[in-house]
Amino acid sequence: MKSLMFHSKRYEIEVVRLANKPEGIRPEEVKEKKQKIKDCILVFITVEKGDDIEKISNELSLEVLKFAKEVNCKKTVICPFAHLSNNLANFKEGIKFFDLLEKELTNKIGLHRSHFGSDKTLLLEVYGHAGAVRFREF
Amino acid sequence: MKSLMFHSKRYEIEVVRLANKPEGIRPEEVKEKKQKIKDCILVFITVEKGDDIEKISNELSLEVLKFAKEVNCKKTVICPFAHLSNNLANFKEGIKFFDLLEKELTNKIGLHRSHFGSDKTLLLEVYGHAGAVRFREF
Repeated sequence: MKSLMFHSKRYEIEVVRLANKPEGIRPEEVKEKKQKIKDCILVFITVEKGDDIEKISNELSLEVLKFAKEVNCKKTVICPFAHLSNNLANFKEGIKFFDLLEKELTNKIGLHRSHFGSDKTLLLEVYGHAGAVRFREF
Repeated sequence: MKSLMFHSKRYEIEVVRLANKPEGIRPEEVKEKKQKIKDCILVFITVEKGDDIEKISNELSLEVLKFAKEVNCKKTVICPFAHLSNNLANFKEGIKFFDLLEKELTNKIGLHRSHFGSDKTLLLEVYGHAGAVRFREF
């Protein structure tokens, strides 16, 4: 699993269309076509083949909470992002990872989850302090 | 080398302060404290230890030009980004890579280069079409 995290001033996406790649993907139901979230820890996540998703979802949740605490931020957005690796997990594993991560973070921080399986427009504003962008590999 | 490329509607950065990590880094001279660029191929690049920078700068330049042609975009921004790997090259190799890449792209596309060695604010707007975000690993 690879993750790119941003202490984000503004995060806005809009689901444009459901993805048809990788082959066989069944996108989640779209609950929020648009999301606009201010002041959050934005967490882009690429789940990879062979990931131990139970273990890693716990480890990543701790990293997110640590980051949020350090910058005094009360919200996080967990967002599927297929672009940190060329070794993607099956979409079912991917979605399962987000279910696990959601469970880990619920009630510990304000939590938003972005749609799995779509092309989206993105607007992202990131603070300029040292440590506002972090990469983690598990 | 890892690269994350965006077909970007809007890209704005501001250099906030010079980086003092990794240890020993000597940031480039700041020529443009702010950059605001519309409609470009934004190329985040992480140069890694052991990269054959001559070969890879050529390969990446071809990917950038191909991307630009496919989406009919006339400009690119090449931007140092230390957050796609935990195996960073020495900063001298990193800067040398950007010199080589600049040489490869000059006169083939409108070219901007972002500062190497600083914390920056970032504003990024990305189109929502399939293929607007691409990951490459060399």
